[in-house]
Amino acid sequence: MKRIAVFASGGGTDFQSVIDANESEKFCEIACLITSKDGIGAIERAHKHGISTAVFSKKEYPDIEQLYAELKCFLNIRRIDYIVLAGWLKIIPESFIKSFEDRIINIHPSLIPAFCGAGYYGLKVHQAVIDYGAKVSGCTVHFVNEVPDGGAIIAQSAVEVENSDTAETLQQKVLKKEHELLPYCVKKLCLGLIEKRGRAVKIN
Amino acid sequence: MKRIAVFASGGGTDFQSVIDANESEKFCEIACLITSKDGIGAIERAHKHGISTAVFSKKEYPDIEQLYAELKCFLNIRRIDYIVLAGWLKIIPESFIKSFEDRIINIHPSLIPAFCGAGYYGLKVHQAVIDYGAKVSGCTVHFVNEVPDGGAIIAQSAVEVENSDTAETLQQKVLKKEHELLPYCVKKLCLGLIEKRGRAVKIN
Repeated sequence: MKRIAVFASGGGTDFQSVIDANESEKFCEIACLITSKDGIGAIERAHKHGISTAVFSKKEYPDIEQLYAELKCFLNIRRIDYIVLAGWLKIIPESFIKSFEDRIINIHPSLIPAFCGAGYYGLKVHQAVIDYGAKVSGCTVHFVNEVPDGGAIIAQSAVEVENSDTAETLQQKVLKKEHELLPYCVKKLCLGLIEKRGRAVKIN
Repeated sequence: MKRIAVFASGGGTDFQSVIDANESEKFCEIACLITSKDGIGAIERAHKHGISTAVFSKKEYPDIEQLYAELKCFLNIRRIDYIVLAGWLKIIPESFIKSFEDRIINIHPSLIPAFCGAGYYGLKVHQAVIDYGAKVSGCTVHFVNEVPDGGAIIAQSAVEVENSDTAETLQQKVLKKEHELLPYCVKKLCLGLIEKRGRAVKIN
């Protein structure tokens, strides 16, 4: 059984979607939750489900390289196979990404390559979609490489943007899709059903 | 009844979709087809349906500004309300676009703002989607402004990109959607059911 670590910076609803799917289908071991600060919703969710948690915050590690070096050590000790970024708002250093090449996935709340990259996170993504006047948005699960939101795409799911949508209502709609797409991808990944060749990703 | 001119550079299947929808629902007068060269499929389609045609080619008008000045005159004499770019592969000068502000629409075979702009036309768009590894693509109908594929979006339609898709099969799938989306937008436009405020476009 593959062991995953989930990284989260907020309320943790994406994290919860993986917990729920895994409780009914048991496709992985959720070995730990890593958060970038204390007191966030994701931690409560982890405790409710008996998942151990660890905080790696900038406050305690002013040197980012040091933070990720210790985090890497922490994860290796726990024999983590895959890292799932589920609302992790911090830039990850290249050295860390290289240590876990093709073993880190991220969920982004738009149809990459639209509305992604530096500065596009949380509600800002959906506000940009509304301001642009796009009529279709969605979410993307992708492998993480050194380009923000630039790694090979695993799966995407589209939603319609309606006349009445605001950034907030669009976020809710996209979140619904995220909560289907993320567990689906984590499951396929942990069961060894994802083939990656360069940018071409095939789900079996 | 609003009068439209359709601009096409190729086989004209998007043009045909407007002809077909209009024959059953009669939402506009297709006053003429403008092509950028002679002998293309779109011209045959026009003749079959009794639609007059005119060729405005670079060959005959080496000065592009002159071409569009005469084309503008041609369209004004024919009291054209809207211009529909249905596979028009030529860059249109700003002066012409300004003369028909908010009265030119275009169909592009991707979900703008992804895979659009200079160099993205025809099969190149779909090849770029495949090379990038995107899992969702589609088509966009938008108002034309001075930025290539950059005007306010009227409507978009998504398609799934499957593992087995090539640029060619993706093109066929997207074309199917184009043939629904374009007549739908032309109809709404001609019936006065499209409201545009800046980039926000509402279809009633």
